[in-house]
Amino acid sequence: MLTIAVDAMGGDQAPKPEVDGAIRAAKALGVRVILVGREDVVRRELESHADCGSLQIEVHHASEQITMHDSAARAVRSKRDSSLRVASRLVRDNCAQGFVSAGNTGAVMATAKMVQGVVPGVDRPAVAGVFPTASGAPVVMIDVGANVDCSPAMLAQFAIMGEIYSRVILHRESPRVGLLSIGEEEHKGNEMTRAAMPLLKSLPINFIGNVEGRDIYTGKVDVVVCDGFIGNVALKVSEGLVEMIKTMLQESLEATITRKIGYVLSKAAFTDFKRRVDYSEYGGAPLLGVKGGCIICHGRSNANAIKNAIRVAAEFSSGKINQRIESEFRRWNGGKAGD
Amino acid sequence: MLTIAVDAMGGDQAPKPEVDGAIRAAKALGVRVILVGREDVVRRELESHADCGSLQIEVHHASEQITMHDSAARAVRSKRDSSLRVASRLVRDNCAQGFVSAGNTGAVMATAKMVQGVVPGVDRPAVAGVFPTASGAPVVMIDVGANVDCSPAMLAQFAIMGEIYSRVILHRESPRVGLLSIGEEEHKGNEMTRAAMPLLKSLPINFIGNVEGRDIYTGKVDVVVCDGFIGNVALKVSEGLVEMIKTMLQESLEATITRKIGYVLSKAAFTDFKRRVDYSEYGGAPLLGVKGGCIICHGRSNANAIKNAIRVAAEFSSGKINQRIESEFRRWNGGKAGD
Repeated sequence: MLTIAVDAMGGDQAPKPEVDGAIRAAKALGVRVILVGREDVVRRELESHADCGSLQIEVHHASEQITMHDSAARAVRSKRDSSLRVASRLVRDNCAQGFVSAGNTGAVMATAKMVQGVVPGVDRPAVAGVFPTASGAPVVMIDVGANVDCSPAMLAQFAIMGEIYSRVILHRESPRVGLLSIGEEEHKGNEMTRAAMPLLKSLPINFIGNVEGRDIYTGKVDVVVCDGFIGNVALKVSEGLVEMIKTMLQESLEATITRKIGYVLSKAAFTDFKRRVDYSEYGGAPLLGVKGGCIICHGRSNANAIKNAIRVAAEFSSGKINQRIESEFRRWNGGKAGD
Repeated sequence: MLTIAVDAMGGDQAPKPEVDGAIRAAKALGVRVILVGREDVVRRELESHADCGSLQIEVHHASEQITMHDSAARAVRSKRDSSLRVASRLVRDNCAQGFVSAGNTGAVMATAKMVQGVVPGVDRPAVAGVFPTASGAPVVMIDVGANVDCSPAMLAQFAIMGEIYSRVILHRESPRVGLLSIGEEEHKGNEMTRAAMPLLKSLPINFIGNVEGRDIYTGKVDVVVCDGFIGNVALKVSEGLVEMIKTMLQESLEATITRKIGYVLSKAAFTDFKRRVDYSEYGGAPLLGVKGGCIICHGRSNANAIKNAIRVAAEFSSGKINQRIESEFRRWNGGKAGD
C-alpha cells in the first residue's frame, strides 16, 4: 500500500483542509496517509470527524511550523523540526512515497531539493502547473516558479519532464510540447527562446514549436515550456483575471431583481462552470526532478484539493515518474546523466 | 480642429469598422478624420452610410495594403504606398496629429518609428496596453510587445512614459507605478528586475516596488512596467483565458432549459459585464515615444474600438504627451536628452 505524507500545518486554514482531505483520500483512494504536524492540534481535528477510526491515517509529530513570512533559506537552515521538513524526511527515509504541502512554495521547493535530493541528471527541479483548457484536456505549464533566469538547456530538461508527466499522469498519448513565446514563427521571441529552439527540436518528443500566451487555454498544446519567471507571471495573471471576472459578474448579476431571479435559475450553470475551471480538481503542482515525490498545493487549498494532491502523489509514485525521468535523461545525455 | 488619420485597410474586417468608427468619431468628438486606403473601396463603404456628407471626413488614396503575412521588415522596406505608411507619413508631414491602425502590430510599430521618428531622449518606443480592473480604474501595462530583451534603463524609460500617459490621458492623480515580478519583496525577481529596481526607485514618480501578475487586475497599481516579452505573454494569456471562460460559461448556461431561462432573464447582466471588460472602450494601445501619435488597435476591432482609438489619438495630441515625455526625459537625463 502506498503511503503519502501530508504537511498538516502548511495551508492558510491548516490543519482543517489537510485532515479532511486526508480522510477523503484514505476512504476513496485506498492509500495510507501520515499527517505531519503538532500532534495535539492534528489529533483534535481528526477526532472531530466521526468514523475515521478504521482508516489508514497516522499522525507524526513535528513541533515547528514554517509560515508565509519565513524565507525559503530560513526554512531550510533553521526549523529542523518543522512539519514540512519532517514530511520531506519521511519521503527521504522511504517511510512515505511522496508528500503534499500547501505551505510556503519557496520553502517547500528548497526543503524537498535539499532533504530528498534531485533525480540523477536533473540540473534544476521545476514546478509543473496543471490547468483546465477549453477542450477539456488539462495543460501542463513548466516551470511556474522554481527557476528564474534559466539556460536553454534547463528549458530542454523541463520539456522532457513535463512530457513524461503529461503522458503518464494525464494520459495524453503523444503530448504536444510547445515553447512559450510571442509569436508562432521560429524567429519570434527573446534571446532565450531563440537559443532554446534548436535544442527543443532535437529532443525525442512531439515538439510543435513556439506557442503564444493565448494557446495555453485553447487545448492546442499539452505541455507549455517556459522559464519560472514567465510561468509565474502567466499563472498569477490568470488567477488575478479569474478573480476580477468573478467579482464583476457577481456584481452585474445582483444589480436588479430580474437579474437575480435569472441568476438563481441558472445557478447550476455557475456551479458546473466553477467545477470545470476549479484548480482543486487537478491536485496541486508537482515539483518534478526531486527524488521521491513532492506536490505543492495553493495556500488556499480546500479538502478536495488536498485529496486530489494525495491522489497525484500516489499516481506519481505508481507511475514511476522519477525512474522514467532518470532513464530518459540518461538516454538523452548518452550515458552522462548521474555522473 | 485636430485631424486624425485612420489606416482604413488595417483590421481583419477592413474597411467596414474603420469607416464606421471614423463616422462615429467625427460626429461625437468633433475631430477631422482622414481615411487612408484604396479610394474606390473606402468611398463605397462611406457611401453606404447616410447623413455623413456634412462630417469632416476625407479619403486619402493609398494603393497598397500590408497584410498579417507581411513581416515588419518587409512592410518597412517595400510597399511604400501602403495605407499604413501613407497614414504615418500624413502625421510626419503635419497633415494629421496622429494615426490609428488595426493592422499588423509589428508593421505598425516599425513604420511609425521609421517614418515619424522617435521623441528626443527615447531609446525605444513601447506599446502601452490599457486594461480594465476590478476597482474600475484602468491600468496601463508597458511594454506589451514592442521590445524583447530590454535593459534596465529601457524599463525606466517605460516607467516614465507610462506614468505620463496614466496621469494625462487616464486622469490618475499620482499614478502608482509597479515593476512586474514574481513576489513583492525587493529581492524577488530575475536578473533584469533586480537590476531595474534601484533605477526605478531613483525616478521622480510614485514607484511602489514589485507587483505580481495578479495585481494587474485588482486596481492596486496604475502602471505596470515590464519588458515586451513578458508583457505580450501576460496580454495573450489574458485574452486566451477570457475566451475560455466565455466558451465554458456559455456551454454551461445552455445545457438545460431552466438554465437557459435563467440566462435570458439575467442577459442584461452579461451585457453589462461585457461592457465593463470590453477592450474596445479603451481605444487601443498607444505606441509611446514616437513623434506625432500612433494608436495600435486589435485586428478584430469593431467600430466602437476605432472610434475610441481616434478619441485617444486626439487626446494624446491635445494632452501634449510627447512634449511632456521629452521634457521629463531632458530633466531626468540632466539635459542629455536629444543630444
